[in-house]
Amino acid sequence: MPLPLFPLLTPIIIAIICIYAAAIWKNTRKANKSKTEEKVISKPWVDDDLKDGTEFNIQQQASKQLDEEITAQHIPYSPKHYSEEEMMRRAKKFYELMNKRRSVRFFSDEPVPREVIDYVIRTAGTSPSGAHTEPWTFVVVQEPEMKRQVREIIEEEEEINYKKRMGQTWVQDIQKMRTNWTKEYLEIAPYLILIFKQVYGNLPSGKKIHYYNEISVSISCGILLAALQNVGLVTVTTTPLNCGPRLRALLERPVNEKLLLLLPVGLPAKNVTVPDFHRKPLTDIMVLV
Amino acid sequence: MPLPLFPLLTPIIIAIICIYAAAIWKNTRKANKSKTEEKVISKPWVDDDLKDGTEFNIQQQASKQLDEEITAQHIPYSPKHYSEEEMMRRAKKFYELMNKRRSVRFFSDEPVPREVIDYVIRTAGTSPSGAHTEPWTFVVVQEPEMKRQVREIIEEEEEINYKKRMGQTWVQDIQKMRTNWTKEYLEIAPYLILIFKQVYGNLPSGKKIHYYNEISVSISCGILLAALQNVGLVTVTTTPLNCGPRLRALLERPVNEKLLLLLPVGLPAKNVTVPDFHRKPLTDIMVLV
Repeated sequence: MPLPLFPLLTPIIIAIICIYAAAIWKNTRKANKSKTEEKVISKPWVDDDLKDGTEFNIQQQASKQLDEEITAQHIPYSPKHYSEEEMMRRAKKFYELMNKRRSVRFFSDEPVPREVIDYVIRTAGTSPSGAHTEPWTFVVVQEPEMKRQVREIIEEEEEINYKKRMGQTWVQDIQKMRTNWTKEYLEIAPYLILIFKQVYGNLPSGKKIHYYNEISVSISCGILLAALQNVGLVTVTTTPLNCGPRLRALLERPVNEKLLLLLPVGLPAKNVTVPDFHRKPLTDIMVLV
Repeated sequence: MPLPLFPLLTPIIIAIICIYAAAIWKNTRKANKSKTEEKVISKPWVDDDLKDGTEFNIQQQASKQLDEEITAQHIPYSPKHYSEEEMMRRAKKFYELMNKRRSVRFFSDEPVPREVIDYVIRTAGTSPSGAHTEPWTFVVVQEPEMKRQVREIIEEEEEINYKKRMGQTWVQDIQKMRTNWTKEYLEIAPYLILIFKQVYGNLPSGKKIHYYNEISVSISCGILLAALQNVGLVTVTTTPLNCGPRLRALLERPVNEKLLLLLPVGLPAKNVTVPDFHRKPLTDIMVLV
């Protein structure tokens, strides 16, 4: 006699299955939605193109061969040793030089010798990097038509960033600094230095992940800024949001390189002004234990 | 006459619903699994603690008040202007100084004046930062017992990293550099500089996201490295993987600060050696357009 029971129970079974299916469906949608929302709300300034290469689905192959740069051979090292007085004098002098650095958005079109830029880039290349991968490419744009195209891409994307992608608070923050999406300086400055991070390297044995590539490249940018300041050149450290793929295509860089920073470089415009900022005092940035 | 049709169709309906539910269920699991795998395989060196604050579920409140630092007031700026010859001379000299920098893992316990370290940190604090947030805290550890505790935490976590968390290729790469989880230098070097990034700031109006905080803090580390090299001090730029929460607790730093880098600082040991690395030539790191 179980047969009559079946048709009787089916509406209940269907109802249970429907509730179950609906619950799973809802959870899936909720998970996806909260993931998207988190990305959009919490970190609107993170460029999709800056992700670290996980989207390339890197198959890292064990490298059997020793890289030329990474070898166990050690050599003596004798860095310069200064007296305490000399250390203090040098520390103070370098601080005073660096403390005069300001981000400048108004440039002179006065030419700057290419050899100076070469040395500045060489200096940036002395930076340490994770496992000595040196994961940086400095693209120096000096050709006027190319600068115009870089500007076009950046202004187009910046306008979208301002109007659509970024939150109102960010726009307020940046407005106080008088930044907007019109960036004349990209054509006026004699050089644009576009700093790419190499998220992986191509070895004969396959792709090799560059550990900590973003931190390494940012550190090298710090040394580059010091080198620029040391020769009296000015710049502004910019992060062209969402321009990476288009600029990479324009400059014909390979897919393992992602745009991290863009620095217009040159001499400052006559009568240049900067926001009246103050830096935090030492007591606010240093903790002694 | 539609009623007899209903019990007849129910097994088919149930089957369809089951397949549908199973498909959703499978997709959900697959998505979660691939997400986890991607994280573990592709970026094993990314410290969970270094994530940018999305896990704090930041509710960014529109700041009505103007920050002291971010104001539209502009002031004249007159940076030093060097002749072309002087620029070249300075560019070359600074490159030669920086090019002598090497990461050093063997330290002398010879004391170094605290005032020199103060100036080095001040210099790092001249770095630019996203929206002038200055999102850095430099914790300088000089107390021997505290250095011992820092070492203990790092060695414990490093051993786990080597033995369990990292892939075999990474271990091979690092072994070539003769690094392992025993780090004597953490107690010998007169100073440990622990560089924390502030992922958000606490304003009276609420939490304020620090845009690009990791890039900003890494740039300031580059300037710090230049300042150390300039005074003849040595260091090695390390990223203590997975030690962040324990070191933050030890040093009593607030939750908005995340450990990014740790630099032991001092004079080099007598007869110090470094790996026989070479740096890429300019043609490999610079592209002229």
